[in-house]
This record gives sequence, C-alpha cells and structure tokens, in this order.
Amino acid sequence: MESKKHPGLQFPIQIRFDDIDSYGHVNNVTFLTYLQDARVQLIHRSLGAAAGEGAAEEDTFYDLVGKGNFALVGRHEIEYLEPLSFRPVPVYVNIWVTHMGGSSFEFGYSVAEQDGAKVYAQATSGMVLVSKETGKPIRLTDAQRHALQEWSGDPVNFRRRPKSS
Amino acid sequence: MESKKHPGLQFPIQIRFDDIDSYGHVNNVTFLTYLQDARVQLIHRSLGAAAGEGAAEEDTFYDLVGKGNFALVGRHEIEYLEPLSFRPVPVYVNIWVTHMGGSSFEFGYSVAEQDGAKVYAQATSGMVLVSKETGKPIRLTDAQRHALQEWSGDPVNFRRRPKSS
Amino acid sequence: MESKKHPGLQFPIQIRFDDIDSYGHVNNVTFLTYLQDARVQLIHRSLGAAAGEGAAEEDTFYDLVGKGNFALVGRHEIEYLEPLSFRPVPVYVNIWVTHMGGSSFEFGYSVAEQDGAKVYAQATSGMVLVSKETGKPIRLTDAQRHALQEWSGDPVNFRRRPKSS
Amino acid sequence: MESKKHPGLQFPIQIRFDDIDSYGHVNNVTFLTYLQDARVQLIHRSLGAAAGEGAAEEDTFYDLVGKGNFALVGRHEIEYLEPLSFRPVPVYVNIWVTHMGGSSFEFGYSVAEQDGAKVYAQATSGMVLVSKETGKPIRLTDAQRHALQEWSGDPVNFRRRPKSS
Repeated sequence: MESKKHPGLQFPIQIRFDDIDSYGHVNNVTFLTYLQDARVQLIHRSLGAAAGEGAAEEDTFYDLVGKGNFALVGRHEIEYLEPLSFRPVPVYVNIWVTHMGGSSFEFGYSVAEQDGAKVYAQATSGMVLVSKETGKPIRLTDAQRHALQEWSGDPVNFRRRPKSS
Repeated sequence: MESKKHPGLQFPIQIRFDDIDSYGHVNNVTFLTYLQDARVQLIHRSLGAAAGEGAAEEDTFYDLVGKGNFALVGRHEIEYLEPLSFRPVPVYVNIWVTHMGGSSFEFGYSVAEQDGAKVYAQATSGMVLVSKETGKPIRLTDAQRHALQEWSGDPVNFRRRPKSS
Repeated sequence: MESKKHPGLQFPIQIRFDDIDSYGHVNNVTFLTYLQDARVQLIHRSLGAAAGEGAAEEDTFYDLVGKGNFALVGRHEIEYLEPLSFRPVPVYVNIWVTHMGGSSFEFGYSVAEQDGAKVYAQATSGMVLVSKETGKPIRLTDAQRHALQEWSGDPVNFRRRPKSS
Repeated sequence: MESKKHPGLQFPIQIRFDDIDSYGHVNNVTFLTYLQDARVQLIHRSLGAAAGEGAAEEDTFYDLVGKGNFALVGRHEIEYLEPLSFRPVPVYVNIWVTHMGGSSFEFGYSVAEQDGAKVYAQATSGMVLVSKETGKPIRLTDAQRHALQEWSGDPVNFRRRPKSS
C-alpha cells in the first residue's frame, strides 16, 4: 500500500452536553461514537474520485457493499492523548484506511483539531465484509478495493500499546 | 504475576432498548459502556479479601486512590466475537487485572453469559494513576498493588489482532 | 376506568456511570431512557393474569400488537422531584395505564425507591397504536383493552404544570 | 409578554448513527438530547442584543446566573409529529422563552427543518433558578429578565395533550 500520511478525509463532530461525564470531559467511550460517525459519513458519501471501474462517482461505499452484505466491526483499538472539553465548535475526526486483506480492512483515525494542532485520541477499527445470508466473510470486490486504496494512509503509530501483550 | 484464568469478578449488566442499534444488536460502542460499568462497580465496592496492609476490608479501590488522584483510561482494545441481542436478562462482564507497571495497570474483560458458555466480546483497558494537581502519573502504592494482585488473571488472548500493526 | 393507586408493575433499572452528567446526577434526559426500558419490559413480558379472551397467559402485549402494527410514542410529560445520584443498587420504575382511547392509551410512571419512600420523577407517555402499512392509527382490540385495563391506575398528579399553558 | 412567533434562535444539531433506534428513526428520547443541546448553546453564547442593564453584550446567560446558582430542569413536555431519519445534514432546534415567573421560566422548542417546512417535534421545558448553597429557588434578576424577554415568543400549541389530564 502506497504510503501517505493520510488522504485528507475529515469530518466535523458536534460535541454534545451529554458527551461530558462527571469528570467534566468527553467520556472515553464517547470517542468511539465520534469514530462511528466519521465511518458512517465516509461510507455514505459519494465516492467521487475514489470511484474505480464498476463504480459511479455518485455511488457510495455503502452502495458498493450492497444490500446483501454489510461491513462488520471486528475490533477497535484506541488511545487517549489529551482530555477534550465541551465547546460549541466541532472537533474533527480524520479517517483513512490502514490495511486491506482478502475480506477485511482497517480504518485508522485521529480525533483532533481541524489543523491537527492538537490530537485528542487515535484509533483503528478492524472491519470485515460479511454476507447477511450466510454470516460468513466475503471477498472485497475490485471496486471496493479501489476506493479503499484511494483512502489509504499510514498505519496508526500507537504510543501506549503495552509491551506485555 | 501468578497466573489464574481470572479471579471471579463478575458484574451483571442490564441491557437497555437504547443499546440496540438500527442493525438490531447491541451497538459495538455500547460494549465499552458495559466495560466502564464493570470497572466502576469493581472500583467502588469494598475490597474485602483484596485489602492488604494499610487498607481496611470495607475500603474500596477508589478510597485507596484518594481524592487527590484518579485512575485515567489510557487506552482500550476490544474485539467482538458474537452479536448480542436485546433480552430482559442481564449479560455479564468478567473483569480482572492483566498487567501492573510502576504507575499503570491493565484490566482484562470478557462480555459473556454468566457461565461463560458464550463470549460476546473481550477487551483490555490501560489505566494510569494520575495526580489531579500535577496531571502527572504517580506510583501505585503497596495497598493498591496488593488489591490489583488479588484481582490478577491471565492476559487476554486476542484473536483478531492484525499482524500488520 | 376503575381507580387503583397503581397495579404494582415495577421494574428495576441499573444506573450507569454514563447516566451521570457533569452536574453529578442522573441527567434529566436519561430518566426518559428509564421509562422506555420499563415500557419495553412491560410490553415484552408474559401477560399472565392480564390475558383476556383471545390471548394466552404466555402472550405478551407485543404479541397482541402483532407484527403488522406498532405502538408509537406520541408525547411525553415528565417532572423532576428529586436529584438522583449514582449508586450500585437499582432505582425502580413503576408503570401503569392512566387512560385508554379508541386507538390510543397513556402510561403513567414514577421513578422511585422500591418502597416508594422517595420519588425522583413522575411522567406520562401518550401511545398510539399504528399500522405499519398505512401509518394510520388502528383501534385497540378487546384483548389489548383487557390487558391495559388490568394495568390501569390513577392519573399522574403533576405538581409543576404551568398554569399559563 | 409581548407576542412574537419566535425570536429566531435556531441551532443546528448533527444527527448521529447512535441516535437511530432499532425502528430505524431517531429515538424519541434522543429528541430531548437535541433540546438540551439547543438550551446549552443558547445559555453559553454571548447575549448580544439581549444584554440589558447590568449585563455586557459579551456576557452569556450562564454568566448572569453566576457560579453560585444554576438553572434546573423542572419538567419537560414533548410531542412527536413526524419521524426523523438519519441524514448527513443537520436538523434544527428553534428555542424561545414562553413564560416567565418569579424564579422560573419556560423554554419552548421545535425540532424542524431550517426553513420550518417540516416540524418533527415540539416541546417545552420548565426551568427554575436555584441557589447551589440552599437548593432553594431564587428570584430572576432584572438582567436575566431582560434577556429572557428578548427571547420570548408564542406559547407552544400542543396538539396531542390529553383532555383527560
């Protein structure tokens, strides 16, 4: 996979009062809600330049997956770097693709200021393409691989991974 | 760390209608809420047999941390093994300690049936003991280490960790 | 409708850390989640003694509604009487039926200690039975009316309703 | 109170995937989260033209309340008019003041399209100004009354209020 820092897919997330826990910051679990919304927004917007052979620019990745299949979350890994406080202006989630397998792929994310001046968290999500009928993994199509390749970027450089595990 | 499968700390979690997403299962993010509640319940209950020198049996781990410090979530890692549906009876979170460092420790979890017959997810959380005043990590005390040791168990054997990262 | 204080339908609700807002109490919105869970539990449990002609004791109200219809929330009214703090033991929702119309009915609730010694909130929800196909209200059946009648109790005596509205 | 339809205070709310319940629409409870965020945004933004004697334009209503007091939610009333689906563009909450008492006031809201073409829900919230120290209601100051008066509009015309209650 050709390495790029990340391909510039960035989604604003509006912080809610309800995101703040009794310690006065965005709760650690809520960050995964932010990742989920970036993922949903990416998957449901027009592919544009990421449309390869067999896909139209107005198609979404969701269209490419098709009604018979779905992209399942297999795992998450997240580390917290700075506390995030309530504020009226949005925080931003950068999302990109860090890995592609036969029927799986991985999203990388950072939750950050728009200009990257501060990074609050970074994360990955392992995704598996699954058939609704059989519940079994199915292979990524060429059009899917093309889009994921267009969105590909560097692996997430986790700093807090335990040596022991 | 002496190895035990896990030391039998298990908390029931009541599933809420709101936990179910538009795919009809407990949303993947919600599992981290379940882990959080197991953690909060463990930290706020009496130490009992886990009370070492300098701690009373009726003390909680929260008492041992003290008002000037707090245990911060540094990271989470979670993998999803089976979909979990809404039901009136609780699901169970098993929680134990998988690692201890100078000022950090790690919780391991499984979200499962009470008898372990089915495991829906397994996870770890890296925790850091931090001073509220300085924001800096502080060393675990002997009484804290004693309790964490009592709660210690096997590392989580993640199956879906990507080889690439 | 024969008046009874309320017919003894009570459901425990486990308080979550996430329910607590930055003011340190269960957030006012979260109370409606508690009501929702009491409602879901009532609707999905066996009718037992509330089963009338055309219904079996093991049927649920959800069964009586049937797959082609659903019970829609039309409105809520809630008032807050006491702040509720985090605690490991559950709070209780009492739920009963306060009103029946042609195709609508109303639930009354209190969020309280199990013995009623303290009431944190009281509320009503207007429900409408609707056809999934047409989206239009449909008439309550005799079996549905029988169950709702069995669950009927006193109207909620709101104390904070504004005179102006 | 001088009547105006409503004084044009409108806040966009980003819909989250997590807001959607297993019926495929924004869950009825989630609407109250939207109201809460409109309220928080209104209370924390500069008063501007709503600043009266004893308040600066850059002050917020939160500043006027002061650190020793807070505005408590006493009640909510909400009715649902149309189902709201997930979408990438925001929905809007209009918020205004429908009533002022000695130490209390009421917000009115609609959850709607920006141009009002479709209204999904309408609601009111009864608020009480309370002293943190005594927990008792305290009288609204002139500067607070001035701001609330500037934000005042028509009462909410509830259509689904039960005649019985």
